[in-house]
Amino acid sequence: MTAVPPPPRMSLAPALLDIQACIRSQLDRVPAEMWRIVRADAPIIESVNAHLTGMKGKMFRPTVLLLASRVDGAPDERGVRMAAVTELIHLASVVHDDSVDHSPLRRGMPTINALFSHQVAVIAGDYLYSRALAELVAVGDLELLRVLTGASNAMTLGELRQLASYDALQFSEQDYWMLVQAKTASLLGAAAEAGALCGAPRFRRQLARFGHLLGMAFQVADDLLDYTESESVTGKPSGNDLKEHKVTLPLIAALPRLSQAQRARVEAVFAASVPAEDQIADVVAIVHECGGIDVARRKGEEFAAEAESALVDVPASEARQALIDALAYVMDRRS
Amino acid sequence: MTAVPPPPRMSLAPALLDIQACIRSQLDRVPAEMWRIVRADAPIIESVNAHLTGMKGKMFRPTVLLLASRVDGAPDERGVRMAAVTELIHLASVVHDDSVDHSPLRRGMPTINALFSHQVAVIAGDYLYSRALAELVAVGDLELLRVLTGASNAMTLGELRQLASYDALQFSEQDYWMLVQAKTASLLGAAAEAGALCGAPRFRRQLARFGHLLGMAFQVADDLLDYTESESVTGKPSGNDLKEHKVTLPLIAALPRLSQAQRARVEAVFAASVPAEDQIADVVAIVHECGGIDVARRKGEEFAAEAESALVDVPASEARQALIDALAYVMDRRS
Repeated sequence: MTAVPPPPRMSLAPALLDIQACIRSQLDRVPAEMWRIVRADAPIIESVNAHLTGMKGKMFRPTVLLLASRVDGAPDERGVRMAAVTELIHLASVVHDDSVDHSPLRRGMPTINALFSHQVAVIAGDYLYSRALAELVAVGDLELLRVLTGASNAMTLGELRQLASYDALQFSEQDYWMLVQAKTASLLGAAAEAGALCGAPRFRRQLARFGHLLGMAFQVADDLLDYTESESVTGKPSGNDLKEHKVTLPLIAALPRLSQAQRARVEAVFAASVPAEDQIADVVAIVHECGGIDVARRKGEEFAAEAESALVDVPASEARQALIDALAYVMDRRS
Repeated sequence: MTAVPPPPRMSLAPALLDIQACIRSQLDRVPAEMWRIVRADAPIIESVNAHLTGMKGKMFRPTVLLLASRVDGAPDERGVRMAAVTELIHLASVVHDDSVDHSPLRRGMPTINALFSHQVAVIAGDYLYSRALAELVAVGDLELLRVLTGASNAMTLGELRQLASYDALQFSEQDYWMLVQAKTASLLGAAAEAGALCGAPRFRRQLARFGHLLGMAFQVADDLLDYTESESVTGKPSGNDLKEHKVTLPLIAALPRLSQAQRARVEAVFAASVPAEDQIADVVAIVHECGGIDVARRKGEEFAAEAESALVDVPASEARQALIDALAYVMDRRS
């Protein structure tokens, strides 16, 4: 009997394309704007850029920024440029993260470190970041500069803290929240706040808070996928974070509820430099059994609810609704 | 017979301490200012910072910035802060360069990549740069931001170009000048220009040009040291650039004058993944013999003379004289 792939799960959550509908024309201009900013007369830059274009992500940060700029009815022209700058800052951090983690693939495409070299990845990340910053300086708005350099600071500090924590199973829930704030919530918060500065300044505080909480929900949902979403090839959850000895909320929530025997099996995974597939599957099952998934899902939903209430003062509009739909999209996504 | 170390060469060139005399009290405040900017509540940051403090360099960029700020008699209070930001940008690029080159030592101290890890070096460099930028944003002067982000762009682009050039012996004199401009002249030019913005804005153009040319002379002189300065242990020139297959001006200038036999010996060094000490010494001797040293020294002196004439409109003062003395110091230094 050959394995039959599970039927696609039906979802009531909004699709990303629908969320982006009211900013479609602006969003479609962001990639060209990004490549304008990083263009340089050097073949190496061209090939790095061409590759990064190919692995273009979902443009989630530009989406949030452009939607935020539209909630008060008067988005200004800087939105597209700022969306490009924000995505470049994200891309720079992704290039360095992949290099630090020695990741060979991202979204199924080879990473810069894999395709070129570790060296090129370090300097290409610096280049993307420094081009983004120079563009931000050219825009000439100190508040925008403040918002985005603040997020970069938080991101790098968070990364350093993560590198320094070597006893993975001592990683506490508080450590986890600090990390999520630094690596995801800070830039999504900054994207929403920068969007506010480009068209809805009177909702700056609310949108910053919304973006931050959206980022918290986003990362929790992302960390859940590793434990819940079956891979197309194996039909089993990937457990990738476990393989890399990364401790995220589902495991943290399960840890205090483990039996001694279960604890020993978890510790064995963290003691093995390359844990076996069935060890990973076993720990994934333990985390489910001990309620780690439920706790994490509930936490994500709490963040989403808080994020929604951050927008209570913002009048109804298509853009506001799209931001709220983005919460449901984040909580329900499969990849 | 045991080898007797050569007597210290007497020099008429000014000492760095004398050059720094008129800015001493400000310069002494720069390190504390640097650590204020990068301080964070994380043990890893503290140990990285403590280590970087230990390997503190000559503070050459802060020196140039503070002197430039003083040539018109009214240095403003931002000078020390800007000197700290500029040195941090330099330090960030040094940390990434060492990591990319896998250098174990700098100024006789272990590098961040050697002492901690390659990963920590990548993220620590990001952290230093992002803190420097945030401080620059806090200063709130868009011109200063423009000058320093422009230099960072040039530096990263230069590094990328260098990584991309894999056939070392095809590296032309023009490639060399582009690289020197990017990696050294851009930040020294920016330091002098930022100094001008902190007290001598009417000499901004002249000081920027001076700093740029000082940087060109500085790098040429630095590249000469590898071929000329005897190491204390071996008593012979280090030839470190040759060992790492880095082609600099002395070799570039010698190349067209080599006999076929000499050319073959040079090519052998570049074909060997780890060239032998006597191969290096041989190529150093060839470069001397074929006039590479003389050409490079003459070029350095031309830049120094051009730099001096860039200050022709600047009225005489202790600070102006110290900048001119810095040219002689750069051309005559031993390490």
